[in-house]
Amino acid sequence: MTIIENYLEENKDRFLNELFGLIRIPSISSVSAHKPDMYKAAEYWKELLLSSGADKAEVFETAGNPVTYAEKIIDPSKPTVLVYSHMDVMPVEPLELWESAPFEPEVRDGKIFARGADDDKGQGMMHAKAFELMVKTNTLPCNVKFMIEGEEEIGSPNLGQWCEEHKDMLKADVILVSDTTMINPETPTITTGLRGLAYWQVEVTGPNRDLHSGMFGGAVANPINVLSKMIAQMTDENGHITIPGFYDDVLEVSKEERELMAEIPFQLEDYKKALDIEEVAGESGFATNERTGIRPSFDVCGIWGGYTGEGAKTVLPSKAYAKISSRLVPNQDHEKIAELFKQHFESIAPNTVKVEVSPLHGGQAYVCPIDLPAYRAAEQACVDVFGRRPVPNRSGGSIPIISTFEEILGIKSILLGFGLESDAIHSPNENFPLEQFYKGIRTIPRFYKYFAEMA
Amino acid sequence: MTIIENYLEENKDRFLNELFGLIRIPSISSVSAHKPDMYKAAEYWKELLLSSGADKAEVFETAGNPVTYAEKIIDPSKPTVLVYSHMDVMPVEPLELWESAPFEPEVRDGKIFARGADDDKGQGMMHAKAFELMVKTNTLPCNVKFMIEGEEEIGSPNLGQWCEEHKDMLKADVILVSDTTMINPETPTITTGLRGLAYWQVEVTGPNRDLHSGMFGGAVANPINVLSKMIAQMTDENGHITIPGFYDDVLEVSKEERELMAEIPFQLEDYKKALDIEEVAGESGFATNERTGIRPSFDVCGIWGGYTGEGAKTVLPSKAYAKISSRLVPNQDHEKIAELFKQHFESIAPNTVKVEVSPLHGGQAYVCPIDLPAYRAAEQACVDVFGRRPVPNRSGGSIPIISTFEEILGIKSILLGFGLESDAIHSPNENFPLEQFYKGIRTIPRFYKYFAEMA
Repeated sequence: MTIIENYLEENKDRFLNELFGLIRIPSISSVSAHKPDMYKAAEYWKELLLSSGADKAEVFETAGNPVTYAEKIIDPSKPTVLVYSHMDVMPVEPLELWESAPFEPEVRDGKIFARGADDDKGQGMMHAKAFELMVKTNTLPCNVKFMIEGEEEIGSPNLGQWCEEHKDMLKADVILVSDTTMINPETPTITTGLRGLAYWQVEVTGPNRDLHSGMFGGAVANPINVLSKMIAQMTDENGHITIPGFYDDVLEVSKEERELMAEIPFQLEDYKKALDIEEVAGESGFATNERTGIRPSFDVCGIWGGYTGEGAKTVLPSKAYAKISSRLVPNQDHEKIAELFKQHFESIAPNTVKVEVSPLHGGQAYVCPIDLPAYRAAEQACVDVFGRRPVPNRSGGSIPIISTFEEILGIKSILLGFGLESDAIHSPNENFPLEQFYKGIRTIPRFYKYFAEMA
Repeated sequence: MTIIENYLEENKDRFLNELFGLIRIPSISSVSAHKPDMYKAAEYWKELLLSSGADKAEVFETAGNPVTYAEKIIDPSKPTVLVYSHMDVMPVEPLELWESAPFEPEVRDGKIFARGADDDKGQGMMHAKAFELMVKTNTLPCNVKFMIEGEEEIGSPNLGQWCEEHKDMLKADVILVSDTTMINPETPTITTGLRGLAYWQVEVTGPNRDLHSGMFGGAVANPINVLSKMIAQMTDENGHITIPGFYDDVLEVSKEERELMAEIPFQLEDYKKALDIEEVAGESGFATNERTGIRPSFDVCGIWGGYTGEGAKTVLPSKAYAKISSRLVPNQDHEKIAELFKQHFESIAPNTVKVEVSPLHGGQAYVCPIDLPAYRAAEQACVDVFGRRPVPNRSGGSIPIISTFEEILGIKSILLGFGLESDAIHSPNENFPLEQFYKGIRTIPRFYKYFAEMA
């Protein structure tokens, strides 16, 4: 695609300067003193998208930080791509560890160093400039919409509501997001799965007050002993979760996708060394990246009860508590799982104690099938630029807003990220290789092209 | 024994006044401002014992509060009784719950109300006045020594050392202690057993840092999950502790003593109701008072790890901790048990984690065999006064100083208490029924008589 290369060559320094201008706005969403910077960033994005070729752009208020929306509708009968990114960044502390000022971008060793260089100003800018490229070279094959939010780093507390209120405006065929990483610089990566979450607090009550462990120990059930036994029963010796019906809806992953996942470079010895563990653990029959990517988990996130101070105080406590979570996989409904856990956990409680289970939080998993036309389009675009087929990567984590988009807007997202592990996002000396920035700009127009052809 | 009744009748008001004088000294050992009161109490005891008939009496310094020692040696070839009591009392807060001033004794409804009325000024005074009675009526059949300490309520931190330094002076055939309770006013009670204790802190380390429970959950062992499984394995479905060798030295209790224990009035429904539990728990094949009295226990006194604040924070923590204790029974050596636990707990750790076990504390159990002459003497004395055979009661708690006496001085203690559950020791409105006070004074000379005959 000579057109892309030529336009990029002529404009690459300007693209970088436009990114630098965005980076210089210290738009830290978690610090209220930076509220004015959020508006500056929103206006910057509005101007950026208008100058890049948008028909219209607008800064929308929410209960929190603003959202910048822009669009270019070339033909209502053509497919529409909705680009999602965020203008906010993480705090920069500890400042003394930065080798250059976090909000004064500097290029060293072929990398842009600055807060937001990758996450997500650098990755967001690739979309703005790829869009400009297509507009200015008359190669834009789809309608485009941009939704740039200002609260991603604090959990997107208001974007769901805003989507709800602007459903019609946001109508699209696919959401395109660059906010994830590649496995390594040679291996393009499409994140195809995110896990969901269910989270409970449990309270086990034994006697109605703390007891003398001498006078009562051995004759009255100790709620910590009981809670430990109950937690122990929740998983079996094969690492299976024992809640009846827990796996009923788990989406089995195709042989093709598991084979692609197996190609992801993974050095078990390095992994164990980095965590300083002798052995990994988990469900029998699954590899480490499958255990985190396509299988649910059961983790006690916190536990407490009795005496936890210094020394040897004896007590038979009245209560013991735990915070327990399960990462869920596609097709598992977090509300159904929350209920299954509650029923089961209460059912295994011995009648020497009382048990209370409170579901605290939940979110749905997300999956992007690899036979989706948009997935195939992204795949082909990567093949063109990187010379190899991307790997579909199931991330063990949760990006709740992606599931929310699917729930509210009914649109699948393609998570096509160009960041690298070494980019140190959220840390001092965040950086983004120029190579990745420009490769992103090369890949995105190809995605549009293939998507327009396939959709 | 008309002699006893006559002397008591003539002197009962004076006895009470002498107790009141002792009570009026606010000898709270845990409050340093009351240090001068400790010396006042020690001097009061010295004068009391001299006026009651002791040949000599002395206030000894220790690293902490003083000890009053007194003796009357009538004939070195006769048996010697060493009386142990304590002059210190617990704090009195909350003051507003007292119906009369805690250090101004008042008799209401046949009970003395004051801090220390029972524990242990009232019970100690019984011994002083029983001693006087025997001396003044020329019926003292043994040598007598008194050891009145000032730090019982803060764990007797200096008495062991003092005993060590005065072994010769303290030589005796039995230690007689009134610092325990009767099961009810009709049932004389001799506490024949105290449990020992072993106490550990355990630390389970998984990965070398807290991990993202999405990125790693399901693939890396969670130390809280693991700790729960390890604790769960420490006891089986019959309530047995699974540490190999744990029960090897447990003293089996004779059929006769178990039958006597079974006579102790116990209302399971009331017990459960008071604790608000549906069922008791414990080792199969043993009654509730046997579970606390003659069998060891395994209680987690504290547990903590991960996120324990408000809300639903996810984390796969690096570490989990527990404080674990076992109450031990006679013949179990706390140091041996500490080592057995450590070995076993480390051996059941999966190789996905590292486990560290730190023994924090320990103490030996105590048992008084019911065929000991001194026990039989106390039993017969109770039969004379209460008209029924006392029950041998195994307390689940630990009074470390009693085991210390046996270790250092090589002397068994007879725990012959006249307190009642309703005496509210350590609480507001502590009291001691006059009836119990005088019954104690009636019982003690009979103990001396039978002991002199049997020893």
